[in-house]
Amino acid sequence: MKVPRWKKAEFEEIEYEPKSIRELLKEMKNISELIVDLAYSAILFNNKEIAEEVRYLEVRMDKLNYEIRIMAMLAARNAEDAEKMAGVLQIAQAADTISNAAADMVKLLAYKLDHPILPHLIKESDETIRKISVDENSAACGKTISELKISSETGVRILAIRRKDRWIYGPKGNVRLRKGDILICIGPEEGIKHLNKLLKGEIEVLE
Amino acid sequence: MKVPRWKKAEFEEIEYEPKSIRELLKEMKNISELIVDLAYSAILFNNKEIAEEVRYLEVRMDKLNYEIRIMAMLAARNAEDAEKMAGVLQIAQAADTISNAAADMVKLLAYKLDHPILPHLIKESDETIRKISVDENSAACGKTISELKISSETGVRILAIRRKDRWIYGPKGNVRLRKGDILICIGPEEGIKHLNKLLKGEIEVLE
Repeated sequence: MKVPRWKKAEFEEIEYEPKSIRELLKEMKNISELIVDLAYSAILFNNKEIAEEVRYLEVRMDKLNYEIRIMAMLAARNAEDAEKMAGVLQIAQAADTISNAAADMVKLLAYKLDHPILPHLIKESDETIRKISVDENSAACGKTISELKISSETGVRILAIRRKDRWIYGPKGNVRLRKGDILICIGPEEGIKHLNKLLKGEIEVLE
Repeated sequence: MKVPRWKKAEFEEIEYEPKSIRELLKEMKNISELIVDLAYSAILFNNKEIAEEVRYLEVRMDKLNYEIRIMAMLAARNAEDAEKMAGVLQIAQAADTISNAAADMVKLLAYKLDHPILPHLIKESDETIRKISVDENSAACGKTISELKISSETGVRILAIRRKDRWIYGPKGNVRLRKGDILICIGPEEGIKHLNKLLKGEIEVLE
C-alpha cells in the first residue's frame, strides 16, 4: 500500500528528529514558560515581531504534543507504564493549553491596529523587548554570552535564542552565539541599542 | 427586595477591595506567570504544599476574572471604550485559562500517591522548592530581603510571598519581611536549610 504523502511527511519528520519523552516534555515545559512571558511582552510593547515568535512557539508546541502522544503510546507496555504515561500526557496537555492561551492573547495585535489602553495598562518599567539577529560581521560570532559581558555592560537579559528551527530557552552564560542567531532580549532601551550595535558589527566590544 | 445572602457577600467582597482595571489585570498577569512556575515545581519536587499554593492562586484568579468583567462593563460608556475593554477581557481570559491549566497539572499530585517517572523526568538541577513561614521570633522580621542578604548568602530566590490573603509576586530587595509571611523559595537544598534557620529564629544572621 502506498503511504499517502502527508502521512509520509509526518513520519519522516518524527524519524528525522528522534527525541525521548524526557526531552519532549522538557522542551514543552520551557516553551510554556517562555511563551507566557513573550505574549505579555508582545502586548505591553505592542510588538508584532514578538507576537510572531509566540505563534511560532505555539506551532512547535502543537507538534511536540503530537509527538509525545505517539512516544507515550509506544512506551507503554503494561498497566504501570500506561499510568505513568497518562500523567506525562496530562502535563503535556496543560503545557499545550498554556501556549494556546498565550497565542490567543497576541491575536489582539493582529486584528486591531491600535488599542492604546493596553500597552500602558500594566507596563511599569522603562524596559523594552526586541528581536535582534546576529550579523555575520559581528564580533559576537563564536563568543559566549559571558565573554561578551552582555548582562553587566547592557543590563539586557536574553530570554531565548532562535537558531534556525530550534530555540535555546533562557540561555546560560556559556552559550556561544552564531551568525544568524535571533536573540529575544529584554532590558533598558539604551542597553538594547548598545547590544544591537555589537550584534550588527558596528562596534567590537560592549565596554 | 431582600438581597440573597450569597449575592450580598459577593458585593461586599468587591466593595471591600476596590481595585482599578489596571490593578486587576496586573495581578492576573503576575499570577499567571507565577502559577506556571509553581505548577511545574510542584510536579518536579512532588510537593503538595506548592500544589496547594497553585490551587489558592487559581481560586484568586477566578475571583479577579469575575471582578474585571464587572469593572470593564462599568467602565465602558461608548463603543470605543467597549472595544478597549474587550481587549482587556481577552487578556484576562487568557490569564485565567493559563492558571486553570496549571491547576490541572497539579491535580496529578492529588489523585496519585506516587508516579515516580514524573519528578525525575525533567528535573536537572539540585535545586529544591519550599514554603517557609517567618516565625515571630525570627531576626528577619522587619528587615528587607536585601538587608538579610538572602540571595548572596544562600543562593535562594524568593518566587513569591503570601501575606495573609495577599501575594507579593517576585518580591524585590526592598520588601520588608513580617512575621507570618509565607515565603515560596527556590534554591539549593543547603541554602534553603540555612534560610529556614533564620526564619525560624534559630540563627540571627545568614553570614
